[in-house]
Amino acid sequence: MSHRPSTPRPGFRAVTPVSILDIRRRIEAGTLTPQAAIAQSRERIDAADGELFAFARRAAPDAPVLAQGPLAGIALGIKDLFDTADLPTEYGSPIYAGHQPRADAALVAVARAAGAFVAGKTHTTEFAFMTPAPTRNPHDLARSPGGSSSGSAAAVAAGLVAGAFGSQTAGSTIRPASFCGIAGFKPSFRLLPTVGMKTFAWSLDTAGLFAGGVRDVAHLAAILSGRDLGIGDDTPSALRVGLYRSGIDGQLSPAMADAWAQGAAACERLGWRVVDIVEDKTLRQAREVQPLIQDYEGAVSLTYERLHHGASLSEALRLALQRGAAIPAERYDDARRTARNGRRAVNALFGNCDVILSPSAPGEAPLFIEGTGDPAFNRLWTLAGTPCVNVPGLRSPSGLPLGLTISARFGRDKLALAAAAGLESILCSA
Amino acid sequence: MSHRPSTPRPGFRAVTPVSILDIRRRIEAGTLTPQAAIAQSRERIDAADGELFAFARRAAPDAPVLAQGPLAGIALGIKDLFDTADLPTEYGSPIYAGHQPRADAALVAVARAAGAFVAGKTHTTEFAFMTPAPTRNPHDLARSPGGSSSGSAAAVAAGLVAGAFGSQTAGSTIRPASFCGIAGFKPSFRLLPTVGMKTFAWSLDTAGLFAGGVRDVAHLAAILSGRDLGIGDDTPSALRVGLYRSGIDGQLSPAMADAWAQGAAACERLGWRVVDIVEDKTLRQAREVQPLIQDYEGAVSLTYERLHHGASLSEALRLALQRGAAIPAERYDDARRTARNGRRAVNALFGNCDVILSPSAPGEAPLFIEGTGDPAFNRLWTLAGTPCVNVPGLRSPSGLPLGLTISARFGRDKLALAAAAGLESILCSA
Repeated sequence: MSHRPSTPRPGFRAVTPVSILDIRRRIEAGTLTPQAAIAQSRERIDAADGELFAFARRAAPDAPVLAQGPLAGIALGIKDLFDTADLPTEYGSPIYAGHQPRADAALVAVARAAGAFVAGKTHTTEFAFMTPAPTRNPHDLARSPGGSSSGSAAAVAAGLVAGAFGSQTAGSTIRPASFCGIAGFKPSFRLLPTVGMKTFAWSLDTAGLFAGGVRDVAHLAAILSGRDLGIGDDTPSALRVGLYRSGIDGQLSPAMADAWAQGAAACERLGWRVVDIVEDKTLRQAREVQPLIQDYEGAVSLTYERLHHGASLSEALRLALQRGAAIPAERYDDARRTARNGRRAVNALFGNCDVILSPSAPGEAPLFIEGTGDPAFNRLWTLAGTPCVNVPGLRSPSGLPLGLTISARFGRDKLALAAAAGLESILCSA
Repeated sequence: MSHRPSTPRPGFRAVTPVSILDIRRRIEAGTLTPQAAIAQSRERIDAADGELFAFARRAAPDAPVLAQGPLAGIALGIKDLFDTADLPTEYGSPIYAGHQPRADAALVAVARAAGAFVAGKTHTTEFAFMTPAPTRNPHDLARSPGGSSSGSAAAVAAGLVAGAFGSQTAGSTIRPASFCGIAGFKPSFRLLPTVGMKTFAWSLDTAGLFAGGVRDVAHLAAILSGRDLGIGDDTPSALRVGLYRSGIDGQLSPAMADAWAQGAAACERLGWRVVDIVEDKTLRQAREVQPLIQDYEGAVSLTYERLHHGASLSEALRLALQRGAAIPAERYDDARRTARNGRRAVNALFGNCDVILSPSAPGEAPLFIEGTGDPAFNRLWTLAGTPCVNVPGLRSPSGLPLGLTISARFGRDKLALAAAAGLESILCSA
């Protein structure tokens, strides 16, 4: 797979992700050692992070590098929402300054047991909500990498680490992957454990992964989940691809609307059949109810922080939690019924198509001062718990990445990854 | 409601739970202050806990007692599986000796915000699994209070606190409530937040509540959940009650088989129609697959503890986690499908009846040295996520409590509580 560097911009170097599969092939061929691979990651972080601000904490200089395991030599950035036993975990909030968990989050422990090296904790927005982290977009330092998995997406895009952990409650994995031009994978709900990840909304929070390309992220997901998710070189044939037409398509930038059309055309070049799918009332209601569920559950999850550390919350989060705390339980219970109906309706969509192609964000990365961007195009798929892959490869006229999402039926993660890999191959070779 | 003290046994005093509703009525009438109510709880703990071992940690002597809020004057025991910001939280494991969380678990924070007083952390079995806590059954100090919510159930049964938090992954709320002769409530899955509660199995773990009587636990649940769950004095009329006949009924002790029949007869005296429901293959498979899901998820959740602190785990847990870690992901995914079919089948049962009456345990509390008892009769309802209430009031010929479970359809927590309160009234007045 080719990762083409973007045009270098003032104040920053060329953006070149590294490939997990490539590193592992070289290690297995004996041309690279895990120690050397990790040392290269350390050097890249040293060189770039003074401008990028992807890392909240770095691994200790003497942190052990494992020589064995399927992820030996793979440096990972861990979103600072996941607990780590050897590094403080602050959840992007001053309330947790210096907080040192006693245990690794389950997914971190699984990755380390497979030989991965935790290069550091990456910046998250405050409790994975909207208040920006300091991280910049490696494609343009004046822009946001997206959120809430800001540091993880930026670190992978800049090649500082081969892979990274994120999370998604609305659009926090797929959107930054789109803005940073890398592969992002939000698996089926609870395919990857969230144990030891700070909860915002328990019915939505999903652990996500980043890597340079789709095959890389599939390989990482396969090892971490113990599932057969690895994608070979064959591209699926005869897929039916639905283009999800919704009431918010008018919010797409012209460049993203064009990218979506390019993606659909690429699917047709692959021999896939492309059909329009129009959002009905049940689906629209589910998409629109996601923020209420997020707000209500967030206010419950963060009750202690809201009531005892309100002055240490950003104004945006404080207001969101107040809004959530004011939602009557009956309204939330109604919203859960709407969500359940929406899940059934999403499931039914996959009777008419194998995968769905949709925009990963309204457009290119916003300016840093404008915030982390809008998750509107991600909310339905997070609520539905379906596997989603951000496919990189397209660019706006100004050279910034634009991502497309491939979604599949709940539990069909391998199909989503295989279709995304096929689409990526044709978009990256165009 | 009357709570009849049992016959005092050698080495222990009479067992008399206190009533949340009674305390609140007296506070509202001005005949009791919250401070006096909490002081009484403190005195009872001082007097009894040297024999009972219900508490792992006590509140500091100067811990503030709130005068306002719907739970002011209510002393709660918090299972030491829930994080508390002011008291160490050790999850029943030496791995977490002295561990001091930075925040209260969500449910703890909600309770404190409602005015409740956290009297202390109650003993849990190791990570809420099977290795016993030191707690004794207040009805007979030679017996187990059940597990994993051992300290919470014992503390409520002995009247040391008015209410307590528990959790249930297989049968850890309903079973100890049965053994201790108190009301236990396992609400619909995720009605109460588990945020800040140590995870064992994410698709099963449910926060539960204990109180002296069913109306007390309903009142506590109503305040903590923000739902209309309070039960008045009226008993529901014309209910259809299903007796769940399963393949493990042969494991019931004669005393419990008799108690179940007494419960059915009491339902008929209430004018309810009692019908047999026979477990079919789908339901049996769901019941039987619950341990596999628990083992697999437990091994993932506790990856860090398993790999880095194996020598500090009990042998029983270490073996269970090894067993879980050896389960192929595909087998777990099959089990989840079996569970989903089982949930649908349980839901369908409630087309034929309004509530289900079943034994809460195979029999009376086992001897302390024999362990915390068998959750076999609870597994299906935990897997299904249905609301369950342990109804106290019956006794074995040897004078030990025997509990029955009322279950209702997912989301019909109020119906389950109302039916349980009706049954309790007739059993306790018999």
